[in-house]
Amino acid sequence: MAKTNPGRFFEDYTLGQVIEHAVPRTVGAGERALYHALYPARHALYSSDEFARTSGLPQSPLDDLAAFHVVFGKTVPDVSLNAVANLGYAEGRWLKPVYAGDTLRSASEVIGLKQNSNGKTGVVYVRTRGMNQRDEVVMEYVRWVMVRKRDVDAPAPETVVPELSKVIDPADLVIPDGLNFTGYDFAQAGEAHRWGDYEVGETIDHVDGVTLEEAEHMMATRLWQNTAKVHFDATFRPDGQRLIYGGHIISLARALSFNGLANAQMIVGLNGGAHANPAFSGLTVKAWSEVLDKAETSAPGVGAIRLRLVATKGGEPFALKGEDGKYQPDVLLDLDYWALMPM
Amino acid sequence: MAKTNPGRFFEDYTLGQVIEHAVPRTVGAGERALYHALYPARHALYSSDEFARTSGLPQSPLDDLAAFHVVFGKTVPDVSLNAVANLGYAEGRWLKPVYAGDTLRSASEVIGLKQNSNGKTGVVYVRTRGMNQRDEVVMEYVRWVMVRKRDVDAPAPETVVPELSKVIDPADLVIPDGLNFTGYDFAQAGEAHRWGDYEVGETIDHVDGVTLEEAEHMMATRLWQNTAKVHFDATFRPDGQRLIYGGHIISLARALSFNGLANAQMIVGLNGGAHANPAFSGLTVKAWSEVLDKAETSAPGVGAIRLRLVATKGGEPFALKGEDGKYQPDVLLDLDYWALMPM
Amino acid sequence: MAKTNPGRFFEDYTLGQVIEHAVPRTVGAGERALYHALYPARHALYSSDEFARTSGLPQSPLDDLAAFHVVFGKTVPDVSLNAVANLGYAEGRWLKPVYAGDTLRSASEVIGLKQNSNGKTGVVYVRTRGMNQRDEVVMEYVRWVMVRKRDVDAPAPETVVPELSKVIDPADLVIPDGLNFTGYDFAQAGEAHRWGDYEVGETIDHVDGVTLEEAEHMMATRLWQNTAKVHFDATFRPDGQRLIYGGHIISLARALSFNGLANAQMIVGLNGGAHANPAFSGLTVKAWSEVLDKAETSAPGVGAIRLRLVATKGGEPFALKGEDGKYQPDVLLDLDYWALMPM
Repeated sequence: MAKTNPGRFFEDYTLGQVIEHAVPRTVGAGERALYHALYPARHALYSSDEFARTSGLPQSPLDDLAAFHVVFGKTVPDVSLNAVANLGYAEGRWLKPVYAGDTLRSASEVIGLKQNSNGKTGVVYVRTRGMNQRDEVVMEYVRWVMVRKRDVDAPAPETVVPELSKVIDPADLVIPDGLNFTGYDFAQAGEAHRWGDYEVGETIDHVDGVTLEEAEHMMATRLWQNTAKVHFDATFRPDGQRLIYGGHIISLARALSFNGLANAQMIVGLNGGAHANPAFSGLTVKAWSEVLDKAETSAPGVGAIRLRLVATKGGEPFALKGEDGKYQPDVLLDLDYWALMPM
Repeated sequence: MAKTNPGRFFEDYTLGQVIEHAVPRTVGAGERALYHALYPARHALYSSDEFARTSGLPQSPLDDLAAFHVVFGKTVPDVSLNAVANLGYAEGRWLKPVYAGDTLRSASEVIGLKQNSNGKTGVVYVRTRGMNQRDEVVMEYVRWVMVRKRDVDAPAPETVVPELSKVIDPADLVIPDGLNFTGYDFAQAGEAHRWGDYEVGETIDHVDGVTLEEAEHMMATRLWQNTAKVHFDATFRPDGQRLIYGGHIISLARALSFNGLANAQMIVGLNGGAHANPAFSGLTVKAWSEVLDKAETSAPGVGAIRLRLVATKGGEPFALKGEDGKYQPDVLLDLDYWALMPM
Repeated sequence: MAKTNPGRFFEDYTLGQVIEHAVPRTVGAGERALYHALYPARHALYSSDEFARTSGLPQSPLDDLAAFHVVFGKTVPDVSLNAVANLGYAEGRWLKPVYAGDTLRSASEVIGLKQNSNGKTGVVYVRTRGMNQRDEVVMEYVRWVMVRKRDVDAPAPETVVPELSKVIDPADLVIPDGLNFTGYDFAQAGEAHRWGDYEVGETIDHVDGVTLEEAEHMMATRLWQNTAKVHFDATFRPDGQRLIYGGHIISLARALSFNGLANAQMIVGLNGGAHANPAFSGLTVKAWSEVLDKAETSAPGVGAIRLRLVATKGGEPFALKGEDGKYQPDVLLDLDYWALMPM
């Protein structure tokens, strides 16, 4: 028997199956510094332990997206090794901040299966949870991917497509214990704009751009122990290019959004997301945002803001889809998330 | 109102104005390791906690230049976003070592203004201070930059050019509390040459070279949260190249100077500096030094040495300026600093 | 007198000479994270402090190969600055795990000398030991290199070629204090295969590949303070390429071997190794392993497995040498080591 992992094929998934993913990972000061080296990250809560303490937290947490990447990375050998496409995200919630010294692991439950009409592939829906060393769930999200069948003649499973919320109800967002923005220092945070200054429908061009490098996306993707071959092996694709992990674009766009959204400090909800077009080394990534909604929270001085974050490889900002309803060719990412902001 | 930061233009500065820069930053074990990964840094005081303790410090401080970069990086959005050129440094002093867990912020005071005769730009002089979480000033320096005017018709401010010391008087250098080189281990430090072995006028070719890489200078520059577009966005310059942050060249040259100056352990003064020519990926950087002066200090076994550190992209060492008084085309950096050395 | 280090030439070595290498180095959370960013490292004992504790250790040690690189890096300025070739390794043993906060230094004893018949070069054999801040030896190994003579007319030393074990006797392997695999979690470790599942003679193709990048190998090599010019300076070689540090290939191949050998957790012995062909940026590295031997140990639940780890730049797996006894042109590395595995 071959000792290497061939990955799961569509017929290997069954409804209700729970997959415990290897390998647990302890995070710390190194991951924090590398996140700041790989992305132009400047949100003050993650940059300064002092700022975090003034906000009611014991110290700066690991960047929320870094926590997401660590949890996500573990699922790759079990969920997406034979995936043809990463189709979507929903119902993502950050439930506990991750601190230096925490050890993360993750597990996924199969919540939906649907064979495609071509009989060669199917869609697998999983709900993934990341846990810390105290077995507390630090985040959860639903992802669905298109996976190849090993044997096209394998029988199709009963079709079950889960009902997923298009948007997380703001009442279901989890605010970290103790979070308090009443003493928020806007000057140190970098911008004066508070929750009340943003209007639903408002768009923001984040102006700055970053040109993608092979060494940077590979280091980032390895750091999250995401092992999908296409990100590392230039001989894998016929065009000799390495496909960049979609999460690298998410983190880059989020960091770029500091310029205009410096006070959208913590990400607490992921409503949905699409990697609209593949990204490769040499492209220059820019970002723009749109305010989709706003909500109050029960935490002192803390408001919630729902944002669309779009990463592009050029072109005009604010162009998302064409008349045919398809993403513009320059759009790399369309992400819909909830963040916490001082009121 | 646009929510992104357009940067300040020349007419936005007023004499005596104090600008508190965002974003505070906690440094630690990650920054230390990355500094050693990005530069061939080997000075023992920063490499080994044990060596630092033998020298009277509680542990290895963050590299002095890393502290400088963190303090400097914060000033970029407020001082040099619309800068045409970084013209010079003076009166730089390191006042307190920075240790893992410290949180740095910085503030600048406008100490000089001079509109250029073309009416389109002006020179702004700022004195920048970096503070830790106990409000102790960890370093300070003067920098002057040429900044564009937003409106060429805006009236010129009264011209004030600060009087700046060409060289810091050695009596004004601040030696870290407790520093003691009487038990200095020259074998572990890497070279036998002590303060008394260097003569004023002596020149040293540091021999080694390092070829510049895009991923490396971008990771370094991001790590210091320096957001100047020209360092990251290949589409920003007409020639499609990314201009390398001058501080990357400073750190690289300083690390290369280990070979011949392994015992010039701590940088305590920055007398001046010029980025003589721009640096780009693909160039190979070499370095040479000249001993400019020497002074005794009050700390046991500790001498001060004033060094010129020159980074080049090739050519013969020790050629600095042509007969016309201009820097040779191969010279990238001309830095004048004070360091501490065992006597 | 020139103050830079010219390196030692063949006639500078004498039998029995002990060379204390500069510069001591404190390792920690930053080196750990960088190791995971630079290599696709996933062995659970090094990834998760919790997994390490379940295995009887206080926390995750620094990766065994990172410890090797730090110890090795210090020897370069004294042993291989004028080396023509790195000829071999033998009798390598890891004696104590290295933990965050430990400070490493190293020293080498000259145990053999043999001038080559051309009179221009000679072979130097050294036994190198790495020590922590408590003067405990954390690892040791023998290395032999071909070194240039400064003066071809210098007299040849008496030839002494040390007798070196081809393989470390499993009874001489040192198991870390407290190591215990009786509570080993195979699901979290990533694979179900235990010591008993591997057969001597079995070969494993590790499937995955990683394309080499200049920025990555340079960052890794700098992190270990290995200063050999050929790794950093593109102008040094006539072909304009930077030769990649052989240790970078070792770490990369070992990390790739996770896929099929996820439970070969700790490296405790290095029987031998050859860098069969040079590696350069742009190549895609793959790896395969062969089980050479197995042995029991006295630690609970812990078996030893002797593995050949081969890194290639393409071609078919399992092809090592041609009929002429020479390595195939695609082979980069042939490493023979002992690892510890759950029984």
